[in-house]
Amino acid sequence: MTISFGLLGAGRIGKTHATAILGIPGAKLTAVYDPVDAAAEHIVKMSGARRASVDEILADKSIHAVLICTPTDMHADQIELAAKAGKAIFCEKPVDLSAERVRACLKVVEATKTKLMIGFNRRFDTNFAAARHRIDAGDVGTVELVQIVSRDPGPPPLEYIKRSGGLFRDMMIHDLDLARFLLNGEEIVSVSATGSVLVDSAIGEAGDVDTATATLRSKSGKIVVITNSRRATYGYDQRIEIHGSKGAVSAANIHTNTVTLANVDGYREAPLLNFFMERYADAYRSELQSFVTAIETGSPISPSGLDGLKALELADACVKSMQSRAEVVVVV
Amino acid sequence: MTISFGLLGAGRIGKTHATAILGIPGAKLTAVYDPVDAAAEHIVKMSGARRASVDEILADKSIHAVLICTPTDMHADQIELAAKAGKAIFCEKPVDLSAERVRACLKVVEATKTKLMIGFNRRFDTNFAAARHRIDAGDVGTVELVQIVSRDPGPPPLEYIKRSGGLFRDMMIHDLDLARFLLNGEEIVSVSATGSVLVDSAIGEAGDVDTATATLRSKSGKIVVITNSRRATYGYDQRIEIHGSKGAVSAANIHTNTVTLANVDGYREAPLLNFFMERYADAYRSELQSFVTAIETGSPISPSGLDGLKALELADACVKSMQSRAEVVVVV
Amino acid sequence: MTISFGLLGAGRIGKTHATAILGIPGAKLTAVYDPVDAAAEHIVKMSGARRASVDEILADKSIHAVLICTPTDMHADQIELAAKAGKAIFCEKPVDLSAERVRACLKVVEATKTKLMIGFNRRFDTNFAAARHRIDAGDVGTVELVQIVSRDPGPPPLEYIKRSGGLFRDMMIHDLDLARFLLNGEEIVSVSATGSVLVDSAIGEAGDVDTATATLRSKSGKIVVITNSRRATYGYDQRIEIHGSKGAVSAANIHTNTVTLANVDGYREAPLLNFFMERYADAYRSELQSFVTAIETGSPISPSGLDGLKALELADACVKSMQSRAEVVVVV
Amino acid sequence: MTISFGLLGAGRIGKTHATAILGIPGAKLTAVYDPVDAAAEHIVKMSGARRASVDEILADKSIHAVLICTPTDMHADQIELAAKAGKAIFCEKPVDLSAERVRACLKVVEATKTKLMIGFNRRFDTNFAAARHRIDAGDVGTVELVQIVSRDPGPPPLEYIKRSGGLFRDMMIHDLDLARFLLNGEEIVSVSATGSVLVDSAIGEAGDVDTATATLRSKSGKIVVITNSRRATYGYDQRIEIHGSKGAVSAANIHTNTVTLANVDGYREAPLLNFFMERYADAYRSELQSFVTAIETGSPISPSGLDGLKALELADACVKSMQSRAEVVVVV
Repeated sequence: MTISFGLLGAGRIGKTHATAILGIPGAKLTAVYDPVDAAAEHIVKMSGARRASVDEILADKSIHAVLICTPTDMHADQIELAAKAGKAIFCEKPVDLSAERVRACLKVVEATKTKLMIGFNRRFDTNFAAARHRIDAGDVGTVELVQIVSRDPGPPPLEYIKRSGGLFRDMMIHDLDLARFLLNGEEIVSVSATGSVLVDSAIGEAGDVDTATATLRSKSGKIVVITNSRRATYGYDQRIEIHGSKGAVSAANIHTNTVTLANVDGYREAPLLNFFMERYADAYRSELQSFVTAIETGSPISPSGLDGLKALELADACVKSMQSRAEVVVVV
Repeated sequence: MTISFGLLGAGRIGKTHATAILGIPGAKLTAVYDPVDAAAEHIVKMSGARRASVDEILADKSIHAVLICTPTDMHADQIELAAKAGKAIFCEKPVDLSAERVRACLKVVEATKTKLMIGFNRRFDTNFAAARHRIDAGDVGTVELVQIVSRDPGPPPLEYIKRSGGLFRDMMIHDLDLARFLLNGEEIVSVSATGSVLVDSAIGEAGDVDTATATLRSKSGKIVVITNSRRATYGYDQRIEIHGSKGAVSAANIHTNTVTLANVDGYREAPLLNFFMERYADAYRSELQSFVTAIETGSPISPSGLDGLKALELADACVKSMQSRAEVVVVV
Repeated sequence: MTISFGLLGAGRIGKTHATAILGIPGAKLTAVYDPVDAAAEHIVKMSGARRASVDEILADKSIHAVLICTPTDMHADQIELAAKAGKAIFCEKPVDLSAERVRACLKVVEATKTKLMIGFNRRFDTNFAAARHRIDAGDVGTVELVQIVSRDPGPPPLEYIKRSGGLFRDMMIHDLDLARFLLNGEEIVSVSATGSVLVDSAIGEAGDVDTATATLRSKSGKIVVITNSRRATYGYDQRIEIHGSKGAVSAANIHTNTVTLANVDGYREAPLLNFFMERYADAYRSELQSFVTAIETGSPISPSGLDGLKALELADACVKSMQSRAEVVVVV
Repeated sequence: MTISFGLLGAGRIGKTHATAILGIPGAKLTAVYDPVDAAAEHIVKMSGARRASVDEILADKSIHAVLICTPTDMHADQIELAAKAGKAIFCEKPVDLSAERVRACLKVVEATKTKLMIGFNRRFDTNFAAARHRIDAGDVGTVELVQIVSRDPGPPPLEYIKRSGGLFRDMMIHDLDLARFLLNGEEIVSVSATGSVLVDSAIGEAGDVDTATATLRSKSGKIVVITNSRRATYGYDQRIEIHGSKGAVSAANIHTNTVTLANVDGYREAPLLNFFMERYADAYRSELQSFVTAIETGSPISPSGLDGLKALELADACVKSMQSRAEVVVVV
């Protein structure tokens, strides 16, 4: 059986997912929706999918699943519509910027017994998955301290930032989910966060920060430290490190190549892969592969809508902690 | 315009190329030939190409190019047939195990003005290409010393070895071509080589060696040292290092992931990508992309049939040097 | 002129300093005080110094400087005595566990115009100093985010912990000073800290933590994140990373050797140098060399008594933050 | 008992050994000979040793051992004189540039039952020793292929080169000994070598080469490849790699510090330690410590005079191979 997809939203991330689907045996892209002609036509040309409206896609019984890559404020509504139309749903993070709205949306998902996967792509990165595998295998013993570094090569457009929900809900939410992934079931019970405007004062004027850190604590006292920056001159900086009673496991960055030049100035290696589309190209493929497999086999979907909600709640708590300058308890 | 390909030979390397073609915009696989049903059908299913005989493929005017991935002893004949049929040709190395036969074949290629590319995939590896780019940019100054390490994870089947022409013509030929690629136009004038049977005595009984080294000298005295082994327990070991008057550039191996486990036994990183299909997956794609682009634009093809001949002549000289225990002059 | 030293306290760190003095031209160890016979005699035998009481050392006009390596609760009194005796003073950190006591002590130091250096050895580590040099040279642009990792191979004896003032005042104080060293003049204005008992519950029963993190903010919003653990199975983990507007500079760990073993299990490197005496052996030498040079040339001493006080105040603020679960403002 | 040393020759390497002795418990430098006032006085001032003639040193019954660091053409005579005077002898390599003269000298050493150690310092390098330890522990299985890279930061003065015996006897001799050290008892039976003049044509005019490689074969077919250059812009390049049936062990270079700067140009690490005195400072200390221990305990001395002879014979064979352009059999 081939899983037939409808794509809602043909922007940067929609295009990334469309490309990934082309390389997955047992999956095909059937239809694409985007109000922007150029964006939609690009996908049509690339994949052979037809262009269609959201309604047409949801009404098409031959389409098994939708990929929701539209702007964030449309996610929750489209999830509910697709759920009622009986589609399996892959939705880019976040479901919504309001935790309350997410909870309402997840009730519809639950009531319709819809398969919903949230696009926390980093769980599917070969390296992070291998680190988690080491943890599961007991190689680090009991986890004590997790450190996550995530720095973008540069800030997104100011207009994007204004609608993004802020650094914690837009950027750190990936790391908050990664923290939960690495702690593997032990939930975070409190957070302390702080942020600064150091990269671009316009970001501050827009009410956001561009440099931030959060310290999370789990029930048993495990500590997670996340640092974020909207700037990294040397590429897309994505590292994790997990320290435990028996050892430590870390996943390093990926350079654009393995070449080193040695001369009188020292040893020079290449910068990092530049941004998420290069860095996580394989992860996007694995993510969709996992979604396809779950649909085919009926196995549970992960990360689920609940995982999306949990990460958002942590992001909200971070914002509250930054504002109150105090630790914030998270209701688990 | 889409370049239409016929594939001759659907074994391991044929399948690799077929996969690469699927990912190249402007290229498609139209027909596949292989006497083995399972092999041919696998390609048919994967790519939508039709199964056909060699004659049918060569007679099909809609097919622009052929990929010759058949056993080595069929290469030269098929190159000549395809050249006469007006196809562009991509042929896996070597053209033939006899330099004399290669020379005769290249005369036909020349007479028919055929575009012929030889499958020295390593020239298209991101890392080796980046190293060569450093050399071209003058970053190492005048090249003085080149070191190439190539070790297979394990020896091929004995039956393969018996028909392979021996380690120098089958395995080191890649490194001999890489040496010429890195010296960028300055030809090798003499070689000294030696080999041992250390991995498997059956290889020795078959008249071959499994561990070998060659020292090459260029006209101006540049030195290239190649070491080969049919064994590498830690994966597919592929490294180069170029030392010059202003610096040194090296390309390191690729590990299966970037994860490190640190514990009381030290720091442990993952083994290397296991073999050429994983290690050079991107290189195979770039190689075919380069071939497609050369057909489309009419630009010169590299590596050419002459490059294939030169590498074989160096391999022959290595064998002669190993046997005579003396340096062998190569007629340039 | 040769600077003549009296050593007060011949324990582990006293012995380290005595060894360092032997290798410094223009310095000699003249006398050693320790109530424990074996400790004192070991130094006598190693260095040729004579054994003496504290009073004798302070009264000996031929002795220019004292090294205070006694238990912490004796430091402040001995600094005052030595200051009044006209000696230059090198004192191990901390001056005292009470910031108030330190302030009183520094008044005596100031009144007597005594040269006082505090033993923050990490400032003299080749690697950390090279990182700071990069910052000073403008290579990272404006500093935005500093990350410091410090993990001991294992916890000290419980008796030590009980008298140590706790992890923040005993262990993290080094990192707090390093943070100030790397920020180079921009003071910390607030701290948020947390700690857990994950390594040994007896540490918790003694009222201390064994795993901790602190987030510091400077006046302009620069952020420093420190993580500490009393456990690191793979050696003494000491890393820093400074991220700025133009780049990032980091100093990596030091392994016991440069050997890598590659086999079917991957690539294995040696563990780290085991503890501070091996890791910072060169730093201890440079530190004392710096002290000797400052005495000889009359140049300012750094880190000063004030640096010692500032680090202690930050440690106190961390403890307060951990207890109050809120950010604590530091009076600069 | 303290071993008392007389130093013959207070040049660069003599000074290195004198410094090493100062740090060895149970050893002291008693007397120094050098016709150059400044060189001798420097050692006197540094160590407290007295200045003396060779005859005085050999006649002084309180001196147990001599360090021969004079020009090469004086080594053999001084070894014989010291042997007859009953001294233990540490002699810098080579014993002589003539293998015949070495053999005659070793007869005197044998007849007088003299303890003679040859200064192949690299055997005592922590990293190379750790690699050998891995081999001895069976971690690489049966050794198959050894690769040694040795590149000096720059060529020595032309006058030095003229008297040095040439690159093979002066520089590669260290690597030839290292090859024997790593093969641990299995002797080399043939060599193939080549050399070029690429760094400085004046070296060629002086009859020497500045870039060279040698391929050695042991009785069982193990292969050793050595590459040498008198140039390395990035520091003193000293690496080994041993490949065997179960794995590979390698020892990497040592950088001047562990700092990395990451910016838009990539990742930059520090150059290597600059030359042998920095790179092998610890090795010189361990080497002399080993000599002192052997004198104290009566244990066998390694590397012995015979090791010195073997390395020279291999160097001679390399020269012969380079000149004859053929493999040269070595009489074991």
